[in-house]
Amino acid sequence: MSNTFGRVLCVTTFGESHGPAIGCVIDGFPPGLEISADEIRHDLMRRATGQSRWTSQRKEAEEVQILSGVFEGKTTGTPIALVVYNTDARSKDYSRIAEQFRPGHADYTYHHKYGLRDYRGGGRSSARETAMRVAAATLARKYLKRVLGVEITGWLAQLGDEVCDLNFDSAVIPTNPFFCPDAEKVAQLESYMKRLWKSGDSVGALVKARATGVPVGLGAPVYAKLDGDLAAAMMSINAVKGVEVGAGFRSVAQKGTEHRDEITPEGFESNHAGGVLGGIATGQPVEVAVAFKPTSSLRLPGRTVNAAGEPVEIITTGRHDPCVGIRAIPIVEAMLALTIMDHFLLHRAQCGDVAPQQPRIPT
Amino acid sequence: MSNTFGRVLCVTTFGESHGPAIGCVIDGFPPGLEISADEIRHDLMRRATGQSRWTSQRKEAEEVQILSGVFEGKTTGTPIALVVYNTDARSKDYSRIAEQFRPGHADYTYHHKYGLRDYRGGGRSSARETAMRVAAATLARKYLKRVLGVEITGWLAQLGDEVCDLNFDSAVIPTNPFFCPDAEKVAQLESYMKRLWKSGDSVGALVKARATGVPVGLGAPVYAKLDGDLAAAMMSINAVKGVEVGAGFRSVAQKGTEHRDEITPEGFESNHAGGVLGGIATGQPVEVAVAFKPTSSLRLPGRTVNAAGEPVEIITTGRHDPCVGIRAIPIVEAMLALTIMDHFLLHRAQCGDVAPQQPRIPT
Amino acid sequence: MSNTFGRVLCVTTFGESHGPAIGCVIDGFPPGLEISADEIRHDLMRRATGQSRWTSQRKEAEEVQILSGVFEGKTTGTPIALVVYNTDARSKDYSRIAEQFRPGHADYTYHHKYGLRDYRGGGRSSARETAMRVAAATLARKYLKRVLGVEITGWLAQLGDEVCDLNFDSAVIPTNPFFCPDAEKVAQLESYMKRLWKSGDSVGALVKARATGVPVGLGAPVYAKLDGDLAAAMMSINAVKGVEVGAGFRSVAQKGTEHRDEITPEGFESNHAGGVLGGIATGQPVEVAVAFKPTSSLRLPGRTVNAAGEPVEIITTGRHDPCVGIRAIPIVEAMLALTIMDHFLLHRAQCGDVAPQQPRIPT
Amino acid sequence: MSNTFGRVLCVTTFGESHGPAIGCVIDGFPPGLEISADEIRHDLMRRATGQSRWTSQRKEAEEVQILSGVFEGKTTGTPIALVVYNTDARSKDYSRIAEQFRPGHADYTYHHKYGLRDYRGGGRSSARETAMRVAAATLARKYLKRVLGVEITGWLAQLGDEVCDLNFDSAVIPTNPFFCPDAEKVAQLESYMKRLWKSGDSVGALVKARATGVPVGLGAPVYAKLDGDLAAAMMSINAVKGVEVGAGFRSVAQKGTEHRDEITPEGFESNHAGGVLGGIATGQPVEVAVAFKPTSSLRLPGRTVNAAGEPVEIITTGRHDPCVGIRAIPIVEAMLALTIMDHFLLHRAQCGDVAPQQPRIPT
Repeated sequence: MSNTFGRVLCVTTFGESHGPAIGCVIDGFPPGLEISADEIRHDLMRRATGQSRWTSQRKEAEEVQILSGVFEGKTTGTPIALVVYNTDARSKDYSRIAEQFRPGHADYTYHHKYGLRDYRGGGRSSARETAMRVAAATLARKYLKRVLGVEITGWLAQLGDEVCDLNFDSAVIPTNPFFCPDAEKVAQLESYMKRLWKSGDSVGALVKARATGVPVGLGAPVYAKLDGDLAAAMMSINAVKGVEVGAGFRSVAQKGTEHRDEITPEGFESNHAGGVLGGIATGQPVEVAVAFKPTSSLRLPGRTVNAAGEPVEIITTGRHDPCVGIRAIPIVEAMLALTIMDHFLLHRAQCGDVAPQQPRIPT
Repeated sequence: MSNTFGRVLCVTTFGESHGPAIGCVIDGFPPGLEISADEIRHDLMRRATGQSRWTSQRKEAEEVQILSGVFEGKTTGTPIALVVYNTDARSKDYSRIAEQFRPGHADYTYHHKYGLRDYRGGGRSSARETAMRVAAATLARKYLKRVLGVEITGWLAQLGDEVCDLNFDSAVIPTNPFFCPDAEKVAQLESYMKRLWKSGDSVGALVKARATGVPVGLGAPVYAKLDGDLAAAMMSINAVKGVEVGAGFRSVAQKGTEHRDEITPEGFESNHAGGVLGGIATGQPVEVAVAFKPTSSLRLPGRTVNAAGEPVEIITTGRHDPCVGIRAIPIVEAMLALTIMDHFLLHRAQCGDVAPQQPRIPT
Repeated sequence: MSNTFGRVLCVTTFGESHGPAIGCVIDGFPPGLEISADEIRHDLMRRATGQSRWTSQRKEAEEVQILSGVFEGKTTGTPIALVVYNTDARSKDYSRIAEQFRPGHADYTYHHKYGLRDYRGGGRSSARETAMRVAAATLARKYLKRVLGVEITGWLAQLGDEVCDLNFDSAVIPTNPFFCPDAEKVAQLESYMKRLWKSGDSVGALVKARATGVPVGLGAPVYAKLDGDLAAAMMSINAVKGVEVGAGFRSVAQKGTEHRDEITPEGFESNHAGGVLGGIATGQPVEVAVAFKPTSSLRLPGRTVNAAGEPVEIITTGRHDPCVGIRAIPIVEAMLALTIMDHFLLHRAQCGDVAPQQPRIPT
Repeated sequence: MSNTFGRVLCVTTFGESHGPAIGCVIDGFPPGLEISADEIRHDLMRRATGQSRWTSQRKEAEEVQILSGVFEGKTTGTPIALVVYNTDARSKDYSRIAEQFRPGHADYTYHHKYGLRDYRGGGRSSARETAMRVAAATLARKYLKRVLGVEITGWLAQLGDEVCDLNFDSAVIPTNPFFCPDAEKVAQLESYMKRLWKSGDSVGALVKARATGVPVGLGAPVYAKLDGDLAAAMMSINAVKGVEVGAGFRSVAQKGTEHRDEITPEGFESNHAGGVLGGIATGQPVEVAVAFKPTSSLRLPGRTVNAAGEPVEIITTGRHDPCVGIRAIPIVEAMLALTIMDHFLLHRAQCGDVAPQQPRIPT
């Protein structure tokens, strides 16, 4: 169960960074949705490496195959298996890592958990796994948009100490390789990344995402709360160290009169809740913020030990993103989509189809 | 499944704030642990209302009954059912809420999800549910301490804008009603709460918790990551809006050379990871921070609508905590304990018993 | 998870035969169904001991309490907890069993699995647990009848070598303590049981059950097949050793032309399938047959060993059913109801509400 | 979850009979077991079609690829993905079936559940899916044998009305294409199948299987009983209509003194229990019997309706087994292996490693 996400829409992923292939099985998906490998590949390319100077230069074709669950272009209700063969894995880059633990990396913990590990490219702990989340989410996003009108948008909110969304324009996001919503800011980010790249260091990032059109009522008490499942979904992404819903950590210093979102016949007056109250969607936009730590694979030397416990200095060559948070935006969007769709199906199980006219007041 | 927490150690809770009783069923617990209702009640009283001036004045006896799964004072391996009858529920306090939605409260979402709701005291959305998490965790904490030497400590890190753990002394925590680790700070918190109480407003809080003695290897890729499950566990607590592991949101502005925890033969040099790398425990202390929003039930008037969608002004009487975060500390500890124990059992399933000598280097 | 039944309608039971109470938590139940403790108790009395000379003389009041999930007489969508306190447990009857393993009983296996066991009345392995399945099924049956028109009927098909349903009249079933559908047969069963009682021996039984009105489409490939889940449901009942759907073991000697149920515009011509093809309901009656072994607790001496491994002769006093299959009929019905309702909700999750006009041909 | 088998050892299968590929993901498997694609393919060939005159003539190469979870020949603890591309699918054989429902086949139910279906070769309802159970079980059987000494043997017990195991010699089973344990019987079965083939009809079969070396204690009350999970496992196999454990339906007519397995210091005196008491393994051989219905795809004409509900006569050409039960023997063995291994891991989670010396009396 450890590699499966979801309660009734279940996505199981498999694959290692430098193994033959990565893939996933999507179980419980409704029948009748048109889907093509091209649509999935389109989304995969948004997350792909090698698309700009600022990400790893590994270039995968991302030629996704649909192995099952789709017939004559439509989902059939049976499990949908997707597979992408790895074509640009250079395992020789990792020979030194086999015997050393990169500080800040999962090398150490995999080794001690399992007693052995596929060290090539991080194996199962590589962000390559997340490609399949994006692939699975292609179906979920299309379904959510068509059936409920849900739209999902993610963006880079902060890169290191550079805040990126002071001026927010969603139309700007797809126009630059940083998923930055502020056109003025892009040049600054480029020079920031140039300096970072030269320095050999890496940096963290803050990613935000929002889903509009989520019907009031999705989510369930108390261990299947929509925000609880979102928190797990986001924290399961590589390098994530923090998750907020709505006002998040700003809630700590807020007064109740400030935080509570008052309601009028025209709708909520604010959205500190981030679209979730008591674990159940309010009908307002669902809003999350996710903190990504800086990449741990660095060409700047660091102290570590080898498998024998002896002290060594480590330098990681290979191809790595200086800021993993940038490419993570489609992944955050994907997990948001999968979580919402899972809860839509779960809600439908218990309460029947969502009636569009259900809320008596605007949401 | 929505009211069940855990993968192999499964805790199912039930009960409403003003219903006849609350309770839980703990399934999958190892046989042979000595446990008594008194031990459980002792922990329940740490979370209980009515213990200080600064929390709700509802006084529950918290007389827990063990209905099953314990024989001659020991767990038998069969499901352990615990029940606490509600004795101080004053439902008349809530008559007005039946027809109105408190801003910032789950009233609105429960109503729209289910079409009806038990409005008395918040029903299922009340923090009263969390008492059973504390009860279940009494067993988990005792087991973890005995078998693995795990110790769990939670504290109030911030109350509104008052930082509480600049001077940290764990011995101070149990000596004051705020779970504050800084003896100097307690008087300040008292006057803060006094002013807050007078104002009629509420405030948020930051709670931190730490588990020491967690063996390297607990946790599993990629959707059963230890930190992923912790995030869900914490976000499932009432009023939580954010969760961090280790450096959390500070990671955003960190450089890789700063964030990565270097390793020497003597162990890790720092713990920005918060004890988790790649979703698997490193053997260092597991550290989480949790943001609680301010209580939404206020005696200061707010705008809302009633069930008919008409605008009304709402004032919440009843007995409420001006800062829910204070009493949440035992709950955060409980969820930390349950998550770790669940992962200990899950690890044992796949990899066999944890060998204490397993790590080749100090952790 | 071991004590939970169901995929989206999850019933968790707890309790030992001679512990303080038995109970269950029903999670995922739709909101809005009227239910009372009296309705549940009515069903519990159908399964209760002490109702006739032919069953155990233990007399439990079966005073069920609804602890949660029901408000103003209606289900709220939150977990429904039911509890029945044990009032007629005579633990002293079992003192000898503490140190001996009854042949054919779970004493031996519980002891070796857990290292200790609640030996009083069989503890968790007692059929007393099944009372809560019947209680949970009261809600499921009422819901299924109202929403889908499903009707469930179980009966005694064979008692030892006495076939009981050669003449089937469902109206006869509730008129006799054997759930026998053949009025002519009842006197014979009485004399059979009288002789059996005198002999001190016990006997097996065959129970059949049928559900009509099950919509075509319930069930799911391939490990959530409707018949697969039914098989697990039935085999989970105490003393069950075999399960058949439709033609069952008669299929072995059938030819394909004989077994296959031909279809005409008026519907299926036969029902060897027992209402399930490919794990999915056909719309015909769902039919199961369940084999119960004879009670293992006998007052006729048997050879066994004690906890020290020494040979001893065992005689079981205490109050036991000479044929557990008789009282099992409401339990088989209950598991049939819970399985169908679980699959109705699961189907609704993936495919939306069942449209009554969906089948294009009569079923 | 519908296409996943197991509680902690989770096998998810995907694929349609005539789609690009079939495959599975095995999650939760212990690290460190040596495994090769050749070993898996060897087992796949035992189940493969085209191996004798008496099974479907479809000839698949069964070239299994290990896509993940195995590194340098050993399992790593991460999900193991296996895929077999379909190479001998002749979809044109099925063009007529697209618009007609074969009596006794899942055509009808898939169509009504999902509104569309992959009709080629039965799509997801084809027995081709079971190849992946056999593949997954290769790992489970190897692990169980090495760690616990478990041995699993299945055989054809009855073909139509021909009883095949009156003289049981396990060494005979692999020597004939019927998995028949009676050397004398093989010629009879050949002439039986010849006649059956000529007639154009099909026939049912009874398959039995046994696992020795299963440690006392595996299994769990009450909805995760070893025999409950076995019943689900077996009933999930295509064409199965009945499952027995131990004495099975013979229990109905047995007396308690006859059925109960007496115990002496040397062990149990009989095994009517089939190795399971109270849902938990006794340490004796675990024994199941499984009833297979006759193939429903026949070249003898039958009455049915088409998708428009009009009456039609159907004749199924294509390549089909006249008795699906024969090739089912490796599948029954596979499900027995997967169930036992799942329970071994589940037991280890709750109770720790099985101590070989645990039972105080011989089993």
